[in-house]
Amino acid sequence: MKKFAVRSTSLLLAAGLGLAAAASWSAESLQDVMKRRNLSQQDLLAASKTYVPTGKRDDFIAFSSGGQSGQIIVYGIPSMRILKYIGVFTPEPWQGYGFDEESKAVLKQGRIDGKDITWGDTHHPAISETQGKYDGQYLFINDKANPRLAVLDLRDFETKQIVVNPIFKSEHGGAFVTPNTEYVIEAAQYASPLENKKFFPLEEFNEKYRGGVTYWKFDRKEGRIVEKESFSLELPPYSQDLSDAGKGPSDGWSFTNSFCSERYVGGIEKGRPPYEAGCSAKDTDYLHVINWKKAAELVKAGKAKKINGHDVLMMETAIKEGILFLIPEPKSPHGVDVTPDGKMLVVAGKLDTHVSVYSFEKIMAAIKAGKFESKDPYGIPVLSMKDTLHTQVQLGLGPLHTQYDSKPCIAYTSLYVDSQVAKWNYCEGKVLDKISVHYNIGHLMTMEGDSVDPKGRYLVALNKLSIDRFNPVGPLHPQNHQLIDISNDKMQLLYDMPLPLGEPHYVVAISADKLKPGVRYKVGTNSRTDKPHPGRVVAGEERTVKKGNKVEVFGSLIRSHITPETIEAEVGDEITINLTNLERAQDETHGFTVSTYNVHASVEPGKTVQLKFKADKEGVYPYYCTEFCSALHLEMQGYLLVKPKGWKPSKTTTLAKGSYTEADYKATVKKVADTQVIIDSVVAYITSVNYKDFPDVVAMVEDAFDQLGKTKGLKEKHEAFAAKKDWENANLWAEQIWQYQVKTADLGLRAKTYLEQNGAKKVK
Amino acid sequence: MKKFAVRSTSLLLAAGLGLAAAASWSAESLQDVMKRRNLSQQDLLAASKTYVPTGKRDDFIAFSSGGQSGQIIVYGIPSMRILKYIGVFTPEPWQGYGFDEESKAVLKQGRIDGKDITWGDTHHPAISETQGKYDGQYLFINDKANPRLAVLDLRDFETKQIVVNPIFKSEHGGAFVTPNTEYVIEAAQYASPLENKKFFPLEEFNEKYRGGVTYWKFDRKEGRIVEKESFSLELPPYSQDLSDAGKGPSDGWSFTNSFCSERYVGGIEKGRPPYEAGCSAKDTDYLHVINWKKAAELVKAGKAKKINGHDVLMMETAIKEGILFLIPEPKSPHGVDVTPDGKMLVVAGKLDTHVSVYSFEKIMAAIKAGKFESKDPYGIPVLSMKDTLHTQVQLGLGPLHTQYDSKPCIAYTSLYVDSQVAKWNYCEGKVLDKISVHYNIGHLMTMEGDSVDPKGRYLVALNKLSIDRFNPVGPLHPQNHQLIDISNDKMQLLYDMPLPLGEPHYVVAISADKLKPGVRYKVGTNSRTDKPHPGRVVAGEERTVKKGNKVEVFGSLIRSHITPETIEAEVGDEITINLTNLERAQDETHGFTVSTYNVHASVEPGKTVQLKFKADKEGVYPYYCTEFCSALHLEMQGYLLVKPKGWKPSKTTTLAKGSYTEADYKATVKKVADTQVIIDSVVAYITSVNYKDFPDVVAMVEDAFDQLGKTKGLKEKHEAFAAKKDWENANLWAEQIWQYQVKTADLGLRAKTYLEQNGAKKVK
Repeated sequence: MKKFAVRSTSLLLAAGLGLAAAASWSAESLQDVMKRRNLSQQDLLAASKTYVPTGKRDDFIAFSSGGQSGQIIVYGIPSMRILKYIGVFTPEPWQGYGFDEESKAVLKQGRIDGKDITWGDTHHPAISETQGKYDGQYLFINDKANPRLAVLDLRDFETKQIVVNPIFKSEHGGAFVTPNTEYVIEAAQYASPLENKKFFPLEEFNEKYRGGVTYWKFDRKEGRIVEKESFSLELPPYSQDLSDAGKGPSDGWSFTNSFCSERYVGGIEKGRPPYEAGCSAKDTDYLHVINWKKAAELVKAGKAKKINGHDVLMMETAIKEGILFLIPEPKSPHGVDVTPDGKMLVVAGKLDTHVSVYSFEKIMAAIKAGKFESKDPYGIPVLSMKDTLHTQVQLGLGPLHTQYDSKPCIAYTSLYVDSQVAKWNYCEGKVLDKISVHYNIGHLMTMEGDSVDPKGRYLVALNKLSIDRFNPVGPLHPQNHQLIDISNDKMQLLYDMPLPLGEPHYVVAISADKLKPGVRYKVGTNSRTDKPHPGRVVAGEERTVKKGNKVEVFGSLIRSHITPETIEAEVGDEITINLTNLERAQDETHGFTVSTYNVHASVEPGKTVQLKFKADKEGVYPYYCTEFCSALHLEMQGYLLVKPKGWKPSKTTTLAKGSYTEADYKATVKKVADTQVIIDSVVAYITSVNYKDFPDVVAMVEDAFDQLGKTKGLKEKHEAFAAKKDWENANLWAEQIWQYQVKTADLGLRAKTYLEQNGAKKVK
Repeated sequence: MKKFAVRSTSLLLAAGLGLAAAASWSAESLQDVMKRRNLSQQDLLAASKTYVPTGKRDDFIAFSSGGQSGQIIVYGIPSMRILKYIGVFTPEPWQGYGFDEESKAVLKQGRIDGKDITWGDTHHPAISETQGKYDGQYLFINDKANPRLAVLDLRDFETKQIVVNPIFKSEHGGAFVTPNTEYVIEAAQYASPLENKKFFPLEEFNEKYRGGVTYWKFDRKEGRIVEKESFSLELPPYSQDLSDAGKGPSDGWSFTNSFCSERYVGGIEKGRPPYEAGCSAKDTDYLHVINWKKAAELVKAGKAKKINGHDVLMMETAIKEGILFLIPEPKSPHGVDVTPDGKMLVVAGKLDTHVSVYSFEKIMAAIKAGKFESKDPYGIPVLSMKDTLHTQVQLGLGPLHTQYDSKPCIAYTSLYVDSQVAKWNYCEGKVLDKISVHYNIGHLMTMEGDSVDPKGRYLVALNKLSIDRFNPVGPLHPQNHQLIDISNDKMQLLYDMPLPLGEPHYVVAISADKLKPGVRYKVGTNSRTDKPHPGRVVAGEERTVKKGNKVEVFGSLIRSHITPETIEAEVGDEITINLTNLERAQDETHGFTVSTYNVHASVEPGKTVQLKFKADKEGVYPYYCTEFCSALHLEMQGYLLVKPKGWKPSKTTTLAKGSYTEADYKATVKKVADTQVIIDSVVAYITSVNYKDFPDVVAMVEDAFDQLGKTKGLKEKHEAFAAKKDWENANLWAEQIWQYQVKTADLGLRAKTYLEQNGAKKVK
């Protein structure tokens, strides 16, 4: 056996300084590949515009709603690679979301009528703005099914807060921010009584059912919505839909459109025409024009009514105070989109073929002049289309949503029925280009295209059907987001991206350089509150506290062991496990679970989490690190021992000993010494080049020394055991030094490869 | 207003037959783009090898474990686009998984000790095999944290069954199939007492803690595991790890490796060296060699012991019957991988630098000769490395997992610490090439690379850390799957794919043409049992049944209405809603939810689902279709009315009427007639070309006629109402015809665009 049982030491040397085979290219030429794969010149051009080589970055980061997955989807543009799904309304175990106490507390904020809601129908994300520009600090997203709104912090891409709408039973038109993120706008969809748990029959639909729009006050410093300073405006039972906030000259106003202003009530099962017929029978619906700044002042002045404990400005007050108006808009519209300069707003009616461009100046003039064509059944003054329109442009079938280019006057509108995107000029009212998409586009999105400062370059078509675009994966298809180049006169289709989970409705994209997310937390942070975690520990202060039937662990995680490695309890005990990840290195996430107890945590560097459960079944339950964190990750394990009540050990039982000898110990000590030589040689290489010019390498080197630093005191320890001829402990503690050395070598080798591949230069 | 309130009719004509702007290409040349984006010739070559143009398909489909997300991830190769996440152990609302009664029944099979487990730690997927070749019928995946195994059907990509391991508390080494999928292999990881809820102290680790391997019997015809015909083998408390089944000459045997055969028990909190030191202190661990065919016979012959009601073949019996052997293997190995011809098995020890190639022939010869070097502490005969090895090859640091090429003798092994892939010849024992990956590769995977018939071409490196590869998205990074071209002598890195959700451990990839998933179900199918659903309906037979405090709906979904549109209940009623999707068209999925009642269903064409909840709060709760299924999807809505107990309507209340006139009715009738002209012209175009040569178009045309067919009887209906001068009903039913016409036109236009873009030719 000797022949094969090769010691690792010498090989660490051989392999560690061995050569990464130089990258060499196949003989197949570009022409060969194009022929073999049947690629056209256009395909190759599109590939060249979207391919992002290893280690290079995307230019824009998109945040997409996940639809019924209740999540946020993050992807890069132009590569269209999905970078992250973020748990928002739906528990997600990879992130520990809904499985640790910190995230459970966030989800608990989203309970409705005292019950957990374990999913959401996310629709419209919005990035926080400063002076109408995306600032990359926060992200907001709504839940249509269970009217709620969530706040995500873009420093760590985590959900921090969920608020429940106090008066709606359904909402679709959130989230939209005002230009300095003073408020987040959320509009109702299907009308219902505003009072919670209040029944009125459908026969009283016109009298007792209501829509509305909520303005959530956002405290930017705290990064949280302030529920008590938020308010709503009561609106007629027209199904309110999307909103947008004014900007520049129109700042202080917001716009919300609607469908089914017919107030039709269906009932196909009783022989009545269905909603789809009755809700689209008229040629126009209503655009709501609201002075939110004045509304906020009126609420402050005490003019609101409390409904379910929430301030609601009633229609009567809003009409009297002159802050609420209606304008007819083409039937069944979806988006209302204010132009970057804030002077116009574009509305597209899905069942009309036009986009209608309204002039804010004309709207204001008509209001000022008191020039109303009528009042709606609730007494709201109605401005005429004629008085307020700048122009109408015929685009095609099913116009739905409009976004803007960096070039002046250029807009893009999705055409649902035509399955096309139209490029047009909203100043001159002229169609410029059309491109077919596959198939049935809902929203579309340009880079920062709903801000005051659109970035142009790319457009994403959010197609609802993919049908024949991808390999089939069963009856439930992915959606298809198509990337389109808009930097030239003619639009060019670049890429088809399948959405593997969820049904996105809307996306926002921000220049990547505006995002500055962190890679670690300050040690001991509760990431959901951004505050120090009471359960945090520093290395060496781990402990388990038992009080009555409560066992509380204050533990730590570090490559590659969990402290403690045994948790003892009696059946029925309440177990609380606090864990701090003591790593400083990027990407050194640890996970934690206990077999069959349905808890899981994702613990990024610096984070502290808490897991709680009742040890309600006797037995032996392994726990382990669920992230493949290091070569020894499978050995990052421990046991929860749940003993019968009153169990006592028999005196004779002791832990089994290994059979290590002095020779084993000496071999391990030699291995450690040899490995140190290798580490020194890798260090010598790294310090011989300009490694300090490579921040990622600097971080790896820091981490390597962190790992090596953990060997401190272990030499004295194994020598002391050796002096007592306790070869087991002597050998294993020496082995533990080697474990840290392997981690150090791992980092050193990665750093070395990086330097070699990235043209590091010799320094003196 | 007249000027702007343009009727839609004429525009449908104009836009419908309007021209999709011809695709035109920008002036920017390939060279310009390469310069602007700083792409090398190599980058362009890699882009050309991975880019899949719109509408084209990938060559291979990969199924990846989702790790702690508890899901399966499906992606295409070479485009590396993720096509689907499939809910397996974790509820997922987009798919209604865990939100409808059918999928709840699947998840319920996975309850442990009477409690829901709402996530899993999926590790190793396996595709069903016929004669050792992937057959594309079923997929199996394990749950390490809560020892379970799931069965997915690749006809619809849905999870059909979950079985709970009856004797393990942890398992890592599943799923692996025998060559005809007779059994699915699942091995334990962290040893624990086999009896459920049984406590023994760690001091009795060697005596009372056990590992093992389970052989789950699979019934291919039923597509389900047969628990009663499954059995396990008791093994020593060595942490069993991955397995592989023999094939060809080694068929009938299986191989399972292990780590921590030291049987070390940690306790760093008590001053003992941690598991990582004690579990890696010896140079070798044990490879378990098992004759599963004979084991199955022994179990049939009644030689197993029942533990927790499950057949377990005890070690003593296995030793006596000569079906269990051990061979030393390099320390802390991960994969054991049988070569395509079944003659060799490769084991890599993470803490050694070699791969060891064992010869099955030599193993059999040694067993036959009774040539054992020793027995382990449990009496299991130990074969010597010397007698069983074919060769050892020094590859580098941290060798972990091996896969095979289509070329004879060629293998690829991942090197975790070196962050490299090594290409080597296992016949001759020679290293051929190495490539650096970024960073720290766990498993790797070649196309059908663990079957008897590997397909070569591509390799995927499953890297655990992405660090600097992608735009930062906070402290929790995506993993990085790198695609490598292995069709030439030198490996070439092609693509970096971030994994946005979950931490995949292993992936399997199959030729795309072996998969034949369906696009719809037979109408009325329970997709989780593949049987007719008792709650199914056909069109026109929808009904609501109230019995005592139970309300049961037998409803349907079709573009764009839900039948029924009102569900009435009294507070406290138990509500059951059965819904059948009556669509036949590909991708015409509907969703369904009821505001704040935490139910959601994804209802693909033909599927029937059931939702259940208690109407425990009074009020008005909108329900709606959650999929953007058509232009009128927002109008696909209804109301659940939860009345106070004993509520009676007052006599005077009736539904409000619209104010439609004869002129409205006539206008709608004209719109319908005009629209029919357009539809006819689109149909004329489609039938003027060879549309029958395009299956996707044929499907669209079928669907279009389906939609139009739904107008049947509506003309008589609106004319009857008109005769009675009921202009509201007359107008709305005429409007309903138009709704179907819009859907028909939508399909026709999509078909037309497709034909134009795909070179349809005129026919006579």
